[in-house]
Amino acid sequence: MAGAPANPDFAPSGAPARAAAPHTAAVIGLGLIGGSIARDLAAAGVRVLGCDRDDSTLEAAIASGVVADSLGPPVGPAWGGVAEADWVILAVPVDAAPALLLSLAPALGGAQLVTDVGSTKSAITAAAEGLGLGPRFVGSHPFAGDHRSGWAASAAGLFRGARAYLTPCPSTGDVALHAARRLWGLCGATVELIDAAAHDRLMAWASHLPQVASSALALALADAGIPPAALGRGGHDATRLAAGSPEVWTGIALENAAELAVALEALEGRLGELREALKRRDAAAIHALLAAATAWSGEGG
Amino acid sequence: MAGAPANPDFAPSGAPARAAAPHTAAVIGLGLIGGSIARDLAAAGVRVLGCDRDDSTLEAAIASGVVADSLGPPVGPAWGGVAEADWVILAVPVDAAPALLLSLAPALGGAQLVTDVGSTKSAITAAAEGLGLGPRFVGSHPFAGDHRSGWAASAAGLFRGARAYLTPCPSTGDVALHAARRLWGLCGATVELIDAAAHDRLMAWASHLPQVASSALALALADAGIPPAALGRGGHDATRLAAGSPEVWTGIALENAAELAVALEALEGRLGELREALKRRDAAAIHALLAAATAWSGEGG
Repeated sequence: MAGAPANPDFAPSGAPARAAAPHTAAVIGLGLIGGSIARDLAAAGVRVLGCDRDDSTLEAAIASGVVADSLGPPVGPAWGGVAEADWVILAVPVDAAPALLLSLAPALGGAQLVTDVGSTKSAITAAAEGLGLGPRFVGSHPFAGDHRSGWAASAAGLFRGARAYLTPCPSTGDVALHAARRLWGLCGATVELIDAAAHDRLMAWASHLPQVASSALALALADAGIPPAALGRGGHDATRLAAGSPEVWTGIALENAAELAVALEALEGRLGELREALKRRDAAAIHALLAAATAWSGEGG
Repeated sequence: MAGAPANPDFAPSGAPARAAAPHTAAVIGLGLIGGSIARDLAAAGVRVLGCDRDDSTLEAAIASGVVADSLGPPVGPAWGGVAEADWVILAVPVDAAPALLLSLAPALGGAQLVTDVGSTKSAITAAAEGLGLGPRFVGSHPFAGDHRSGWAASAAGLFRGARAYLTPCPSTGDVALHAARRLWGLCGATVELIDAAAHDRLMAWASHLPQVASSALALALADAGIPPAALGRGGHDATRLAAGSPEVWTGIALENAAELAVALEALEGRLGELREALKRRDAAAIHALLAAATAWSGEGG
C-alpha cells in the first residue's frame, strides 16, 4: 500500500501506525450505504474504486468525482481493482454478501480490512471465518440510513453521529480491527464492538421489528383504502419505514427470522391486549398500557 | 362585538361581511393545541381570554403576552369572560369536552362560534346539537400536533399547512361555519368539511391506529428490555407517537373504541401473516408483503 495519506486531515494524531491510512478503498455496491461511504472516504482523500450491478450508478458515481475508477467486472481474476485495495467494503444486500465474499477472496491483494455493512451479522461473519478471511474481516453495521435507497439518496455525512456496530470474527487481527475503527471514524460514526449473534438478537427488536411493524401498518391501511395522504405527521412517522426496499428487507428478515418471529408475536400480544381493553371499554387498562408506553419513551431522555 | 379588527392583516379581502373578525376569543385549555391557537390568534390581533386547569399555565400564557386576561373561574356564572367572546374554543381532552360544553352553555353571550379541537367528533357534535348550541357549533379537528404536550410545547404556526377537519352539526348556521373557516385560516390550516361519523371512521385508521400501534411497539420493546437509546432513526420514527399523553389518548381511543378495535385486529392479522411467512422461511411471501407496503408508501407521492 502507498505511504503518506493523500490528505493530511486523514491521519488523526495518535492513531496507531499499524492502522495506516489507506490509499485505496474498494466499495462494492454504490447504493445509499455504499455511496455514502464512498463520498466520505473520497472527501477524506482516499482513492475510491467502485462497482455496482447497475452500470448507470457506477457512471454517475465516477462522473461525480467520488469514485475514481471502476473496480472492473464483478467476478473472477479480471476484478483487478480489488487487488489494489487496502480496504474492501461490501455494501450489498445481506443475502448477496456471503456469495460475493466467496468470489472476492481469490482477488484480494494485501487488503488490511474486508468488511460489509449488512443489518445482520451472524451469517457474514461465519462466512468470512469459513473462507479463511477471518484475520482481516470485521463485520460492520452502520446503524443509520434512510427509508430511501440508491446512489441518488447517498450523501456525505450520512453516518455522522451514528453508531456503527463492529462484529469481529474469532480470528480477526488487530490491524483489521483498527482499520475498521478508522473507516467508521472517517465517516463520523461511533464504533461499538459486539458479538455477531448478540447483535442480531438486539436488531431483531431494535430495528427489524419496527421495520416490519411499519410495513404491517401500511398493509392494514392499504387494505382499508386509506392512502398515505390521509395520514397526519404522526401516521407518516409510524409508516415511514414501510417505504424501505423489499429486496433488502426480505433478506434481513429471513436471516433473522427466528428472533424476529418472536418479536412479532410479542407485538401482536400487546396489540391484542389493547384491543381487548377497548372492547371492554376498560379505561383503566387502556390508560395503564398507554402510560407504560409513554414511560418507556421517556427512558434515558 | 367590536367593529374594526385590531390588525388590518386580519381581514382577508373578499371575506363575507357576516364573518367579521372577532374582537375577542376565549380559549379554554392552553395545552399544545389551545396554546398554539392562542398564539396564532393573538398574533393576528385578536384579544385572547384564556383558562387552564393548571394555574401556572395560565400565568405563563398571560406573562407571555399571548393571553390578554383570565376567563375567570371555569364554572358557573362567574365565568364572565365567556360572555364577551365572539369565538369560544374548547381545547381540552375529548372526554372532558361534552361536560365542559354543558357548563359553558349558560355563560355564552353573543358568540358566533363555539368549537372544539378534539380528535373524535361524533360525541361532541351530538352533545352540541343536544344542548341547543348546534346553530353556532362546528366541531374542529386540526390534524396536526406533536407527541409533546402542554403550553411549553405550543407554538405559533403549529397548524400552518395542516388540514383542519370541520364537522358541522345538523343545525349549524352559515355564520358559525364562516367563522370556523376564518379561525383555521388565521392559523394557516386548510379546512375540510366532513360528517362527524365519517371523520371518526377515517381517524380510527389514519390516526388512532398508528397511535396505538406505536404504543404497542413501545410496550413490546419495553418487555424485551430494549431502551429507546438502542433504536436507530427508523425505530424512533416508528415509536415517536408512543410518547403522547396517556390521558388524551385514552379518551380518544375509548370514544372511537369500536372502529379502532377493528383496525387493530386488521393490523394483528397482517403482522401474523408476516410472522407465519418468516416461520416458513417463505421469501416470496415476505417479499410480496413488503413490496405491497412499499407500493402503498409510494401512493400519491
